[in-house]
Amino acid sequence: MKEDLPRLEEIEAAAERIAGVASRTPLIESPALSRLTNHEVYLKLECFQPIKVFKLRGAYNKISLLSQSSVVAASSGNHGIAVAYSSRLLSKKCTVVVPETAVKEKVDTIAEYGAEVVRAGRYSDEREAKARSIAEATGAAFVHPFNDPDVIAGQGTCGLEIAHQLDGIDAVLVPVGGGGLISGISTALKAIRPETKVYGVEPRGAPKLTEALKAKKVVTVPSPVSIADGLIPSALGRLTYKACSMNVDGSFAVSEEDILRATKTMIREARIFAEPSGATPLAPLLSSTSGSIGRRVVLVVSGGNISHELLAKMLT
Amino acid sequence: MKEDLPRLEEIEAAAERIAGVASRTPLIESPALSRLTNHEVYLKLECFQPIKVFKLRGAYNKISLLSQSSVVAASSGNHGIAVAYSSRLLSKKCTVVVPETAVKEKVDTIAEYGAEVVRAGRYSDEREAKARSIAEATGAAFVHPFNDPDVIAGQGTCGLEIAHQLDGIDAVLVPVGGGGLISGISTALKAIRPETKVYGVEPRGAPKLTEALKAKKVVTVPSPVSIADGLIPSALGRLTYKACSMNVDGSFAVSEEDILRATKTMIREARIFAEPSGATPLAPLLSSTSGSIGRRVVLVVSGGNISHELLAKMLT
Repeated sequence: MKEDLPRLEEIEAAAERIAGVASRTPLIESPALSRLTNHEVYLKLECFQPIKVFKLRGAYNKISLLSQSSVVAASSGNHGIAVAYSSRLLSKKCTVVVPETAVKEKVDTIAEYGAEVVRAGRYSDEREAKARSIAEATGAAFVHPFNDPDVIAGQGTCGLEIAHQLDGIDAVLVPVGGGGLISGISTALKAIRPETKVYGVEPRGAPKLTEALKAKKVVTVPSPVSIADGLIPSALGRLTYKACSMNVDGSFAVSEEDILRATKTMIREARIFAEPSGATPLAPLLSSTSGSIGRRVVLVVSGGNISHELLAKMLT
Repeated sequence: MKEDLPRLEEIEAAAERIAGVASRTPLIESPALSRLTNHEVYLKLECFQPIKVFKLRGAYNKISLLSQSSVVAASSGNHGIAVAYSSRLLSKKCTVVVPETAVKEKVDTIAEYGAEVVRAGRYSDEREAKARSIAEATGAAFVHPFNDPDVIAGQGTCGLEIAHQLDGIDAVLVPVGGGGLISGISTALKAIRPETKVYGVEPRGAPKLTEALKAKKVVTVPSPVSIADGLIPSALGRLTYKACSMNVDGSFAVSEEDILRATKTMIREARIFAEPSGATPLAPLLSSTSGSIGRRVVLVVSGGNISHELLAKMLT
């Protein structure tokens, strides 16, 4: 296994590999959000991927490079959907370990794409251990959700697209779970558009990036928690920390109240049915902690696999 | 103005013209719908266009060919959104005439993209007359929602994509309002994949295509009505009738109850937040009136601009 960060050429190769499977998603202005926030707000709509989440990019890139005929993943939901969907397209057997607390709609989707679903614990380290033990026992390839150069290269294709879809971007705001998406996007953007700033946005209950940038090393957050269920790994990985330390310009750690407000605003004002993790980049703009990031801002709306119960609440 | 149907070359030219503005939307299987209906159900997700509706294809193609600096459109909502959004991108002044009864979220979106909104009557002929009078008075170009070769060529790009995204399709089911989408899709598909059948699906309260195919001429439906607010023009146009008479293999006229059931199923089982017009192609598959259309079926989910009130109802 390669053990270093992908370069621009590897992200470009990933883009060719995933073409026809993952979408070149829309990047459009939201006049409603621009008016509300006093920025020029553009949305990169990863919630319009075939499986409604960016994770398809990394998972498909990774799995298409594997020689093994079966794969196993540990996931809070979206990575599992991406691995299950990609495995089905690539005719590989798939097992996904999810937490007891996973969003029902996400687990249903994983099962529908033909993956075996195994439930284990509440935290990412528990399910990763379980998934690795399954991989060991069965010879399946373990597909890490973020700390893998081929996964990061796949997510980086989102950054390539942003760089080609819009000029004069001051800042790109990216939700941070394990850091795969922001690692890929920032690597691509800094190579093509070094003047564009890239910021991470994460829950205050899981401030992996904020703490890591402060400590200048990987920091493990005890008992991470947030309604943004895609953003609660307990730490960045070795590779994603390295990418963030080189290419990310800063981070915002936002409250649960602000994440909910961002989700509601994204749904009701921008009329984009984002899940909380995907709406999180809007939070700093609503709480006016983002004054210095410049005028033209891209929010990466990472996914739209919201629970139907929460969506109904947000609408009424 | 050209007055005949677009040929395949004109649809291919439209595809180049709209590239980078309209998306090549995903075409994915829905295992949940496949299981429910005993077909192999694929969804062409036009609700993942930048403005959540296919109409961007036709409107942008048409408006980018105009010499006038202002445009005017009559629309129940989605065509207006497409014309407003395209006009903004092409720096043209835009006026949209909508019915008194238009979905609030659609009217808000039209206004956000900077168009002037004018309200007139309940039926399509009233607002078309109003729009044409504005065009006459101001010198603006009137952009018809469907009966225009450049609009039909734009919608046809959806058919080109389907033909290249999936092999062995038995049938494509397309929602029918004025017939622009099905005219474009059927023209493209019959040119590339003549073995694939194309069927229209429309509300029983607005059976324009069904009646026209029976009478072998354009038939005007008195007081068309349906919850599928994009499918209630009172008649096909001269051009769309001609395309349908040549290239469409049949039609289904479905009840309001079946449209609502299709919408709920699309949202809850396929987890795609379609508007009723976009979910309508699923209705024949749920009511088992579609036994003879073959196994591998593509449903064109034309749009996702559902009212938030209805979406909340569908979710609970």
